[in-house]
Amino acid sequence: MIIVTTPGISADALDRIIEHVERLGLRTHVSRGEQRTIVGCIGDEAKLSEVGLTSLDGVERVIPVLKPYRLASREFSPENTQIRFGDRADTVVGGREIVVIAGPCSVEGRDMLFDAAHAVQGAGARMLRGGAFKPRTSPYAFQGMGEPGLQLLAEVRAETGMPIVTEVMDPRQVELVAAYADVLQIGARNMQNFALLNEVGRVQRPVLLKRGLSATITELLMAAEYIMAQGNGDVMLCERGIRTYETATRNTMDIAAIPVLKKETHLPVIVDPSHAGGRADLVTPLAMAAIAAGADGLIVEVHPDPANARSDGEQSLKPAAFVHMMQQVQLIADAVGRGMSHYAPAGAV
Amino acid sequence: MIIVTTPGISADALDRIIEHVERLGLRTHVSRGEQRTIVGCIGDEAKLSEVGLTSLDGVERVIPVLKPYRLASREFSPENTQIRFGDRADTVVGGREIVVIAGPCSVEGRDMLFDAAHAVQGAGARMLRGGAFKPRTSPYAFQGMGEPGLQLLAEVRAETGMPIVTEVMDPRQVELVAAYADVLQIGARNMQNFALLNEVGRVQRPVLLKRGLSATITELLMAAEYIMAQGNGDVMLCERGIRTYETATRNTMDIAAIPVLKKETHLPVIVDPSHAGGRADLVTPLAMAAIAAGADGLIVEVHPDPANARSDGEQSLKPAAFVHMMQQVQLIADAVGRGMSHYAPAGAV
Amino acid sequence: MIIVTTPGISADALDRIIEHVERLGLRTHVSRGEQRTIVGCIGDEAKLSEVGLTSLDGVERVIPVLKPYRLASREFSPENTQIRFGDRADTVVGGREIVVIAGPCSVEGRDMLFDAAHAVQGAGARMLRGGAFKPRTSPYAFQGMGEPGLQLLAEVRAETGMPIVTEVMDPRQVELVAAYADVLQIGARNMQNFALLNEVGRVQRPVLLKRGLSATITELLMAAEYIMAQGNGDVMLCERGIRTYETATRNTMDIAAIPVLKKETHLPVIVDPSHAGGRADLVTPLAMAAIAAGADGLIVEVHPDPANARSDGEQSLKPAAFVHMMQQVQLIADAVGRGMSHYAPAGAV
Amino acid sequence: MIIVTTPGISADALDRIIEHVERLGLRTHVSRGEQRTIVGCIGDEAKLSEVGLTSLDGVERVIPVLKPYRLASREFSPENTQIRFGDRADTVVGGREIVVIAGPCSVEGRDMLFDAAHAVQGAGARMLRGGAFKPRTSPYAFQGMGEPGLQLLAEVRAETGMPIVTEVMDPRQVELVAAYADVLQIGARNMQNFALLNEVGRVQRPVLLKRGLSATITELLMAAEYIMAQGNGDVMLCERGIRTYETATRNTMDIAAIPVLKKETHLPVIVDPSHAGGRADLVTPLAMAAIAAGADGLIVEVHPDPANARSDGEQSLKPAAFVHMMQQVQLIADAVGRGMSHYAPAGAV
Repeated sequence: MIIVTTPGISADALDRIIEHVERLGLRTHVSRGEQRTIVGCIGDEAKLSEVGLTSLDGVERVIPVLKPYRLASREFSPENTQIRFGDRADTVVGGREIVVIAGPCSVEGRDMLFDAAHAVQGAGARMLRGGAFKPRTSPYAFQGMGEPGLQLLAEVRAETGMPIVTEVMDPRQVELVAAYADVLQIGARNMQNFALLNEVGRVQRPVLLKRGLSATITELLMAAEYIMAQGNGDVMLCERGIRTYETATRNTMDIAAIPVLKKETHLPVIVDPSHAGGRADLVTPLAMAAIAAGADGLIVEVHPDPANARSDGEQSLKPAAFVHMMQQVQLIADAVGRGMSHYAPAGAV
Repeated sequence: MIIVTTPGISADALDRIIEHVERLGLRTHVSRGEQRTIVGCIGDEAKLSEVGLTSLDGVERVIPVLKPYRLASREFSPENTQIRFGDRADTVVGGREIVVIAGPCSVEGRDMLFDAAHAVQGAGARMLRGGAFKPRTSPYAFQGMGEPGLQLLAEVRAETGMPIVTEVMDPRQVELVAAYADVLQIGARNMQNFALLNEVGRVQRPVLLKRGLSATITELLMAAEYIMAQGNGDVMLCERGIRTYETATRNTMDIAAIPVLKKETHLPVIVDPSHAGGRADLVTPLAMAAIAAGADGLIVEVHPDPANARSDGEQSLKPAAFVHMMQQVQLIADAVGRGMSHYAPAGAV
Repeated sequence: MIIVTTPGISADALDRIIEHVERLGLRTHVSRGEQRTIVGCIGDEAKLSEVGLTSLDGVERVIPVLKPYRLASREFSPENTQIRFGDRADTVVGGREIVVIAGPCSVEGRDMLFDAAHAVQGAGARMLRGGAFKPRTSPYAFQGMGEPGLQLLAEVRAETGMPIVTEVMDPRQVELVAAYADVLQIGARNMQNFALLNEVGRVQRPVLLKRGLSATITELLMAAEYIMAQGNGDVMLCERGIRTYETATRNTMDIAAIPVLKKETHLPVIVDPSHAGGRADLVTPLAMAAIAAGADGLIVEVHPDPANARSDGEQSLKPAAFVHMMQQVQLIADAVGRGMSHYAPAGAV
Repeated sequence: MIIVTTPGISADALDRIIEHVERLGLRTHVSRGEQRTIVGCIGDEAKLSEVGLTSLDGVERVIPVLKPYRLASREFSPENTQIRFGDRADTVVGGREIVVIAGPCSVEGRDMLFDAAHAVQGAGARMLRGGAFKPRTSPYAFQGMGEPGLQLLAEVRAETGMPIVTEVMDPRQVELVAAYADVLQIGARNMQNFALLNEVGRVQRPVLLKRGLSATITELLMAAEYIMAQGNGDVMLCERGIRTYETATRNTMDIAAIPVLKKETHLPVIVDPSHAGGRADLVTPLAMAAIAAGADGLIVEVHPDPANARSDGEQSLKPAAFVHMMQQVQLIADAVGRGMSHYAPAGAV
């Protein structure tokens, strides 16, 4: 922590600042510049309330030096975290190969779900997404099928072998959802729902943590830190676009977040081109860009009949468009030397 | 709902759009312009999935005409909602007089809480704020005292008569917090925590709903709609600054949100100048501006010793500064013909 | 300037950083923390290219300590700058009294301009605004009347005595516009048009400098610094809303910018509630809030017939609405002890 | 243009709206919904001032249907615009092959410029960038070498054969800069400097138009429209990051803007990964992502000695890093079937 003092600070005020810091067990280092005196604080930065210091007389600005996340940091674990799924643990997120998660926004019924699952598996998706509990802006919109939706997801996994990714919105439902799902998704609007983060931190299920609509990269890592601090280290970070002034797209995909995250953390980075753009016609170019920038995987909305989808139809790919997307993404994955993880059906070997 | 079609749409594609809309029970109205054909949809707009329509061939854009909130809308209830508190129901939020809620960010201990309560009551605050459960960006930061903090708040209410405003973060704690508090606060990060909104909608306690960091005004009203749709109509909306690129302040206070909300809704509008600016030196001018723009009340952080606060010290007013703020706000409240609601101590009449 | 080094930096790399800084004539001060070593740089910060330092090995972050503006800073000139206008220098911007500038967005013709001028003067406006050169998003939109518009403005000044505020968009027109106008307005889109800033810095006409759509407060002050560095110290800063994700209003008025600017600089601060909100119904509450927060004046669009305005009709007040706004603003100006500067017609004394 | 009226609008008010529209030469089409009446306006939308309509009684909202740009639109010219450079017109921007423009931020001197030019040409760059006139936030920062810098650029072109891209900031300098440069660059801060846009529209030199810091995609296209409306159709659009709340990067690169622009317009799209991220370590992943998303070219800052650069050192690649970037970009260009345009030295064939 570095404390920048106001110009012409009195000796008394400076002494009180130093005393305040040292009482908390840190050492200080005073550097007198031509216009400003600066107090460096050496020791456990977490003990210093940044917030309190600025209310001391003579403090102009307080600058933290260390990063606030530990378990999530690349320094804590230089090797990439790899998360394994499936009976034979043969689906790996965070390894060399790109993993694609695909499926409908919501589970709307058995036929549609099975159609979607077969379509995405046939095109090379490795995991299935589908929401049983849906966060909706309007209380009058379709809120998801609930537990019957989870049961359908379990059935489709039994048939296809694909691990299931589904959202959990309520700390009271974590146990229920974890009983069915392979990955617990935390939605963008819940990225700082700390009660929920703590709860998913206590179960042994990988978590797909979506970046909040206006969360900084640091805040995303701090949200992961909440989950990891409870003992669950299997966190996948998901860039899904941030909110800006631009209205041509639903959100603005922060492509630079991918290399920044890969540098800052050992956790896998997944990109959601469907929500990032909010338009079906943008999914393929955004997916290609994400892999070129270093993402470990994609999560994509695919619906057999988007015009009749009960949510997110405008950004869902039809199965044929998804096949095309997969071909294009494969080209990029090969170009960057990673390749794609394809699903080998249960009886295939 | 208005559907703008692509230039040169075929008769077939147009027919399929019309058929799609009419199958959902709405009537259509086709208007052929020089470059675009437009389909107006007449009937229950909620039945039309905006989202699905854009995936039909020939649809360029879909424009909703109606507002998505109902119970929260000014049209639903032209009269201002007034919320009454206290044994004698003599504290009114949403009436002619301005109400000021003040107190520490967190409940940190008995002495500090009583000191703060006496200070703010003496200066004219009508209600007491203080957090027992604290949403913190870092899992390693002070998370609040929990239930013992609620008990201290109840004690201070017993002594001072001031209604208590405190945050609830977890749907499992709504009942507990409602047993102690007069107002349930929903924090900015939980504005779209729909499980929590539903739960506070089911108890009979007024709710102070803070606007999310990057929530639109419409989304704030939709979050209120969630609470109201469950049966709890006593919702106060709180503008507390939005996230922008400007770094001179913690957030950017959206002053225009106040008159926009007063026009769109009958619910009271409270402003939080402490979080909006994030700096103690900005609290007074922002509070004055808020009242000048039409706010019904303020919620302000006051701490007897900000340098040793366990959270938000940099934006907390010292008691003397709060006295000054109240004097300035009083001048504005009088100028706009509203006045301020002052607390008359229990034995005062 | 403070240099934060990477963890475990080598002695060699540290030496090269120190050598780089000292070669530029500054002294260094090394502080070894538990996890990071920090190099304080003492001397003329402007000599250090922040930009270059980060490309040295072992540099993680470079933190400037001093503010980049000098002439515009409150430290340079603790007293408020007051700018005087009119033959008798009796219009003062930056003094105790609030000054209101009002008039049409564009000069569209003689009758309309005179009507508008009489209306705003009658309601208490002290200066007249009106654009002869208009920056328009579309090349096909009305671009202003040009010099004939300036001539009309000069005529109306001759009749009413009101000083004229009008925009200059092109460095080649500065001399022309300065020949007619009392104040040269720099529009938001030109806030960092450095050729134009330099040019208006070289004439002796006060400048109204509008904040760019996404300019920080610091960048606004740096733009003023450009003008002042050329020798023209009469700069009025104008907050006119910034661009955010919110779409309920045209821009988001940054109300906190007012007290922040009043603290950072001695220059007068004017607020434009017309552009900030972009809606006629928001002008009055935003104007009241601006004065409550400490603004020195307002610039407001008024049009006798907004439905037929050639630009900005949706945010223009009709004369009757302007009269009402002035009454409301007067109440706030009185409440904060400033009052309003009313125009005394030429022959009135 | 679609006019949404207020609920319960009177017949009189509706008549006046219709009359207003028809007086301007458009036809109207009234559609009565259950809660709102809608007036469709058929004819030349440009004649309707959107702005004025909202001030008519009974108008709630006005929705434009048509896009405001014409010459820049894909509908106007379905084929991609290709811009040719060099004596043999063998450098093509907007064709199948990717074009890379590289060089230092500023021209700082002969040796550095020639070193940089040889380095980037050797690595495969096709055109040379370098600023002689520099827009700087601070009036005290290095403002560029001016005309001597242009002369150096011309010398280096004579030797290497590489076309020159350099910025013009002032309408008075357009002729001068056009006498030396092959491409006139309009910087982000000047994207809506309409005097400058008009001036570059009048010379026959291709223009590289950078997107403003907070410009929408539509505004970028409207700025191009200004240039094209003056007769100069050779405009390259440049995405260089937009301003958001995220501080980990200098700007947020809007990767989705690339496919959106390719759909909306026939003009070539260039990406500037140096300014978008503001960090040398992000240039390569952002460049790769840009090509994967469909960009036609890149403009990249390269400096032989970034630590001593006079501007933008933190985001400049060293020559060796640029070689690596080019190899990586080549892989992506090949994967998407485009390849890269390499420079064949003058005497090579």
